[in-house]
Amino acid sequence: MGSDDAYLLTATQALARIRAGELTIEGYARSLLRRIDVRDADVGAWAYLDRDYVLQQARALDKVPMQDRGPLHGMPVAVKDVIYTKDMPTAHNSPIYKGDFPKLDAASIILLRHAGVLFLGKTTTAEFAASYTGPASTRNPHNPSRTPGGSSSGSGAAVGDLQAPVALGTQTGGSTIRPGSFNGVYSIKPTWNAVSREGLKISSLMLDTIGIFARGVDDLDLVADAFALHDDEPSDFDGIKGARFALCKTVVWPIAGEGTRNAIARAVDILRAHGAEVEEVDLPTEFDNLPRWHNVVLQTEGETFFLPEHRTAKDQLSPQLVGYVERKAGYDRREQLKAFDGIAALRPKIDEIAGKYTAILTPSVVDEAPEGLEWTGDSAFCSGWSALHTPVINIPGFQGHSGMPIGVSLVAARYRDRHLLKVAKEVGKLFEAEGGWKRNLY
Amino acid sequence: MGSDDAYLLTATQALARIRAGELTIEGYARSLLRRIDVRDADVGAWAYLDRDYVLQQARALDKVPMQDRGPLHGMPVAVKDVIYTKDMPTAHNSPIYKGDFPKLDAASIILLRHAGVLFLGKTTTAEFAASYTGPASTRNPHNPSRTPGGSSSGSGAAVGDLQAPVALGTQTGGSTIRPGSFNGVYSIKPTWNAVSREGLKISSLMLDTIGIFARGVDDLDLVADAFALHDDEPSDFDGIKGARFALCKTVVWPIAGEGTRNAIARAVDILRAHGAEVEEVDLPTEFDNLPRWHNVVLQTEGETFFLPEHRTAKDQLSPQLVGYVERKAGYDRREQLKAFDGIAALRPKIDEIAGKYTAILTPSVVDEAPEGLEWTGDSAFCSGWSALHTPVINIPGFQGHSGMPIGVSLVAARYRDRHLLKVAKEVGKLFEAEGGWKRNLY
Repeated sequence: MGSDDAYLLTATQALARIRAGELTIEGYARSLLRRIDVRDADVGAWAYLDRDYVLQQARALDKVPMQDRGPLHGMPVAVKDVIYTKDMPTAHNSPIYKGDFPKLDAASIILLRHAGVLFLGKTTTAEFAASYTGPASTRNPHNPSRTPGGSSSGSGAAVGDLQAPVALGTQTGGSTIRPGSFNGVYSIKPTWNAVSREGLKISSLMLDTIGIFARGVDDLDLVADAFALHDDEPSDFDGIKGARFALCKTVVWPIAGEGTRNAIARAVDILRAHGAEVEEVDLPTEFDNLPRWHNVVLQTEGETFFLPEHRTAKDQLSPQLVGYVERKAGYDRREQLKAFDGIAALRPKIDEIAGKYTAILTPSVVDEAPEGLEWTGDSAFCSGWSALHTPVINIPGFQGHSGMPIGVSLVAARYRDRHLLKVAKEVGKLFEAEGGWKRNLY
Repeated sequence: MGSDDAYLLTATQALARIRAGELTIEGYARSLLRRIDVRDADVGAWAYLDRDYVLQQARALDKVPMQDRGPLHGMPVAVKDVIYTKDMPTAHNSPIYKGDFPKLDAASIILLRHAGVLFLGKTTTAEFAASYTGPASTRNPHNPSRTPGGSSSGSGAAVGDLQAPVALGTQTGGSTIRPGSFNGVYSIKPTWNAVSREGLKISSLMLDTIGIFARGVDDLDLVADAFALHDDEPSDFDGIKGARFALCKTVVWPIAGEGTRNAIARAVDILRAHGAEVEEVDLPTEFDNLPRWHNVVLQTEGETFFLPEHRTAKDQLSPQLVGYVERKAGYDRREQLKAFDGIAALRPKIDEIAGKYTAILTPSVVDEAPEGLEWTGDSAFCSGWSALHTPVINIPGFQGHSGMPIGVSLVAARYRDRHLLKVAKEVGKLFEAEGGWKRNLY
């Protein structure tokens, strides 16, 4: 493989070649930019991309002596356009912030920049990472008539389409796990607050979490290292054989489509065939409140956090977000606190349940990516975990009725992110090999 | 009173004169700038102040026709230098961010700017609003050998010294209530998340709250209106007579000094003399964990939120914050979650207790402002309420052994901010009239 085909590499593979002197960062960047040039009209993953600036940065990185390089030196990362970058504008897919350019790096950007990351550009997002309406320009790379999911639409699509090996997104409901599933890539929503959310526009303080997209767990690990994600103890996981998984279908299982039902059934079969126990676990009934409570927190916090835009530019805010500020759903402070405190009381309980198993296996999505670009899909299977603050990883490998990718999620107790990544790596090998879906983009 | 003396006015008084055409905004601004010129060498409240820019803004505001003016048109506000302002630099009292100038307005700034506020400048802060060491330049206006408190040092001192009628601060432990008490002004820490914290550098996501300083409750109300602070129901408070107060000395009462013991005793006497009931209430023993749990959350969240500065410029970070990132206190994830979940479980309980009373009366500080500028004082009486997310108001009116001001706090259940302001207004009248301390700056 020459540098022309470098876009096919995972970040881990590419960094090894860069370190070995087999690939220049400029060569790698040019390969990705060519991929983008070929595919951008079909996929539309980028909200901002300055090709000359990318190459200028790449050349500067190439000039840094090997001994002065950070651990992610030359790793290209795409950044969701709700995360501030001091060298690129941030517009949140809102006309209110069109061309806005705060000279500020988010905490996640500072950490990655310090490690040597090459930021490719900003990826499309649903309005403020909050609207259920997708960015109209972005299509699923596996089928341009279907949504790439949201709200991290561009990050999921760019990584799924080999335009970037790694991307940052965010999740408030299912904005990292759902596009991970729809685009056939790995995506992790770490434990809430384990990674600084500084410099990420707020939709809901108790729910928003940085997310990471990649085509392999090794790549997620690279970013997790840069973010200093750490558990109290090293994981005791030592392979699928003898591992114990809890299958949690959750209260929203009745809305699961055929694709997800098949994916979950196949996932259970694969795990059992490789010597794992899989036990179906019904969460206590108090967890049935989660879908409603998540929505109450989302909307009532939205009232606080979208008030400035509502006050200054209401006509440029979507009706959904106007509705949050104007309390169209009618939730009052009492309901807000009941949801806020109710979710808080469930968190130690899910930790206790999750702690009894290697990981929880649960759906990522209702089904494969739906037709159309308007609606980014249902986050019903993700929002509860977002509220519970647990780490979640989408693992690709399955497919739906139309051949579109479907992933399933693994979940662990809070601050067991590294354990979860270790488990996901082994589980991912099996699901990718035996789940039935093959990546057909190249 | 001519415009020369306009600095003596509260914001409410000044806005009435501006509306009546008796005072220009430029004249008001000039009066405040003269006050600053006279006093700045002694007080040192400002981290950034551009006199020409203030006057330029004032003249522009004067030109806006009356019918186009917002509710706070021409109200001068000082802003703690951890809150982003697109027209002024934000340095967090850290050499890492010296001269840094993100072109971004915090949500609180957007709301106030839209209402017509004239931003005077940025006020001094302890490093990142997190260090226990004060900004060396800032002195208590009532006695320059004493601390103005922290971390909102400049905001408390500027309002106490009549250099600004209103200031924004923040509170993570006691950074709004303590400088309120030390400088003899009113200060409110609203319910956590009731005001958007967007654009305020994060020290601890679960603790940081915007704070407001003023010399009267009417002025706090003006800002509360701009922030759309609202309770579910209108307050049923109709005067001190027949009101019921809970005196909560809290688990840290043994460290209360003579000044605070006298202030609380006097406050109780005054309330009773005016027909209120005051009942001493011991919080359930589980609340005794709050001081430790607050510290665990503070330090473990600090690990996440100061990681970027630690990674990129550790030598320019104070040892205290380096200690958070390097977990010098030894707290692990398990302890972090125990504290996080433990505090969460107490929140509905304090709401229930507070809901039985008109308000909770509790100390603001250990005693009057201590000698010296190095240490900003103890936040022991504030940190528990910060963790519990309840609104708290410091009410001045008492004094310590050395004649320095001492305030006491009123607390209500979460999202009863407007009720609390209403109560504070009446209580404040009594405490200011009969508490024994008189403002002697003019």
